[in-house]
Amino acid sequence: MPTSYHRFAGSSLARLAALSDGVFAVAMTLLVLDLKAPVLHARAQRPIWSASGGGSEHVLIHDLVHHVAPHLLPYAMSFLTLGIFWVGQQTQLESFTQSNRALTWIHLAFLLAVTLMPFSTSLLAQDITYRSSIAVYWLNLLALGVALFASLRYADRADLMSDETGVEMRAALKRRIVVYQWLYAFAALTSLVNTYVAIGLLVLFQLNAVIAPRIWILDRA
Amino acid sequence: MPTSYHRFAGSSLARLAALSDGVFAVAMTLLVLDLKAPVLHARAQRPIWSASGGGSEHVLIHDLVHHVAPHLLPYAMSFLTLGIFWVGQQTQLESFTQSNRALTWIHLAFLLAVTLMPFSTSLLAQDITYRSSIAVYWLNLLALGVALFASLRYADRADLMSDETGVEMRAALKRRIVVYQWLYAFAALTSLVNTYVAIGLLVLFQLNAVIAPRIWILDRA
Amino acid sequence: MPTSYHRFAGSSLARLAALSDGVFAVAMTLLVLDLKAPVLHARAQRPIWSASGGGSEHVLIHDLVHHVAPHLLPYAMSFLTLGIFWVGQQTQLESFTQSNRALTWIHLAFLLAVTLMPFSTSLLAQDITYRSSIAVYWLNLLALGVALFASLRYADRADLMSDETGVEMRAALKRRIVVYQWLYAFAALTSLVNTYVAIGLLVLFQLNAVIAPRIWILDRA
Amino acid sequence: MPTSYHRFAGSSLARLAALSDGVFAVAMTLLVLDLKAPVLHARAQRPIWSASGGGSEHVLIHDLVHHVAPHLLPYAMSFLTLGIFWVGQQTQLESFTQSNRALTWIHLAFLLAVTLMPFSTSLLAQDITYRSSIAVYWLNLLALGVALFASLRYADRADLMSDETGVEMRAALKRRIVVYQWLYAFAALTSLVNTYVAIGLLVLFQLNAVIAPRIWILDRA
Repeated sequence: MPTSYHRFAGSSLARLAALSDGVFAVAMTLLVLDLKAPVLHARAQRPIWSASGGGSEHVLIHDLVHHVAPHLLPYAMSFLTLGIFWVGQQTQLESFTQSNRALTWIHLAFLLAVTLMPFSTSLLAQDITYRSSIAVYWLNLLALGVALFASLRYADRADLMSDETGVEMRAALKRRIVVYQWLYAFAALTSLVNTYVAIGLLVLFQLNAVIAPRIWILDRA
Repeated sequence: MPTSYHRFAGSSLARLAALSDGVFAVAMTLLVLDLKAPVLHARAQRPIWSASGGGSEHVLIHDLVHHVAPHLLPYAMSFLTLGIFWVGQQTQLESFTQSNRALTWIHLAFLLAVTLMPFSTSLLAQDITYRSSIAVYWLNLLALGVALFASLRYADRADLMSDETGVEMRAALKRRIVVYQWLYAFAALTSLVNTYVAIGLLVLFQLNAVIAPRIWILDRA
Repeated sequence: MPTSYHRFAGSSLARLAALSDGVFAVAMTLLVLDLKAPVLHARAQRPIWSASGGGSEHVLIHDLVHHVAPHLLPYAMSFLTLGIFWVGQQTQLESFTQSNRALTWIHLAFLLAVTLMPFSTSLLAQDITYRSSIAVYWLNLLALGVALFASLRYADRADLMSDETGVEMRAALKRRIVVYQWLYAFAALTSLVNTYVAIGLLVLFQLNAVIAPRIWILDRA
Repeated sequence: MPTSYHRFAGSSLARLAALSDGVFAVAMTLLVLDLKAPVLHARAQRPIWSASGGGSEHVLIHDLVHHVAPHLLPYAMSFLTLGIFWVGQQTQLESFTQSNRALTWIHLAFLLAVTLMPFSTSLLAQDITYRSSIAVYWLNLLALGVALFASLRYADRADLMSDETGVEMRAALKRRIVVYQWLYAFAALTSLVNTYVAIGLLVLFQLNAVIAPRIWILDRA
């Protein structure tokens, strides 16, 4: 028998949604903010006279091409990832009738994984050829998936889902998470062969989640 | 035929609005935060004894006038731009009856462009005489406009707009975006002659979008 | 006659409130974030051996007392200020029946002044004895007040205020802004004599706005 | 008799909740952002040739294990703490029928304590063996508790709580805060013996607040 505090703490879905939107908004904006660092870093390491050496604009173009462009891929991928999980969480919250303390804490764990995304993205952006960076990134994706799956499973058992969300739909929501987690794990494993292949596959899987071409088998998930 | 997940993922306009407000709020606040950098930078490069040399307050005033003031124009322009596009997106969202997954992703692409604003603004603020900075800034404005236009076009075709938003109004919303994008492109092109002219024109066009004097032909848009 | 776009752009009070809450939340959190800088700065300037010299915890205590404590006053004052203006704006928005494009832009100008608070606070925290820092801070307070006053005046004339907000109330809202702006101006002027007096007065006026003791004449405002 | 301004300023619970969600979202995201610092710091202090010395990925792994891992505990603990107090504040706000100016200011004081969490967490993360860091951290926990307790007490006396929140429930809410504050104080005191014991106890108490095993006596609170 829960105590009186636990009986009605954390029951507001609206505030959970608002906190989530705030955390996603800050994480998304901070992702891109990191793009500035390579330009400033390259500038700081350059001798002062080079800036006045007849081609300072070429220096900026050089920095953009050589220092910013290689970082764009990890950041775009992470923005996609945050978008995918934001849509996924929103779809779940819409299908719940109310929250409770346990469900709230599952989503707080989910948000913790969201706040870690800028960190694992910057690790990946620093050197895209390190397998350990991809391992950290994959652990982050795994944490996001595990939290969302736990949320679905708990809400289903604790009878917090609306009746409109039928059995078929609940199974579809869970299956989607599981299939994508297997795909992420497969992509991470390919980094043992080549990290570029791993990242290429991750981007491909995320684009599929967004665009969802009808032909692909993945779309069934 | 869409799968069951895609049929009702991302249908909440309220959460899309909340995420957007969060991203705009963070981007707007971070814009101005960058103003601190030139003061700190100038201070760090100065020999220690200069601060104690009988006029440390003059140093601060000097920094404000010579290092902060030239940066104010790009930041004010970007705040205006973010405000204009925030009002523009809000007006669109108010005219929709609901969202769906595709529309949500168009707006996530729009938000990606919003998060890039502090980056392109800081490029512009570093040296206002570089044409490549203006090119990057213009690309950012273009991305914002393309996303909002795509949203309108998609919502119109997918029958997501409310009936109150008549044919005339839908045309007016689209025309406004197109006209301003031509003006931005024209301003960016003038940077081939002189970058100050380009920025002056951009500020002028943004002020027109805000104040909307009745006399000007632009107001028809 | 306004064009069709202008007729219904920016009419949502709810989204204006949400954006404002976001901007205030980011500005408030960033204020305090700056407290870390002096500790890190003092640490970086100290020779490495001093940290291992038998009293590293005393170093931290020294830093907290000598480098963080003097900065606490400006930050606490700015948090108070942001709180006061947040309550003030909320009270206004609650008294409006709807927004329009012009009112939205007045509030965006207000939010621009809000985003400048962390900047003017850090100027003040760097050296509390500079009159120019207090002048910049006062200009920021002035901008906040002017924007809120303009909002009230415009909403009154454009008939956007609810009928429940009677004539007496509208006058009280305006008078409160004007009285406090005179007090801020007076405090800023005293910095010509002594900057500590100026800051002391500002803190006193802000505390009065918050606590509002019944005895004081200021409470009439 | 309050003046007309004070009579209806700050009465919106919805905006108070929205501002709180924003502040918590920013504070939670900034917490984790700090994890990047140790990696960058270690990298900056290393001679350039070491990165090219046949094992640059080992360097990253070394940094993650030796510089990031020890910081994970304070950050995870602070995320737990912010989550606990977010749920606690939400539960209170749900039990109020409306707000007023005094209650709003109590919650602004609470939010000030929330914004200080990233600062006290980073102090703790810098060196976990300093008693003064734990003292600062405990003061922060105390401020959070005092503010929430004051809010409950004020709302109870000012008749702002809903009738559904019975006498038993109000007592339970207050008791919970008091019991946990005693536990925090006890944990902080053990730092006089050993700081690791203090932090271990804090983590244990926070986990109990989250997981709330039925067996423990603490669960009565």
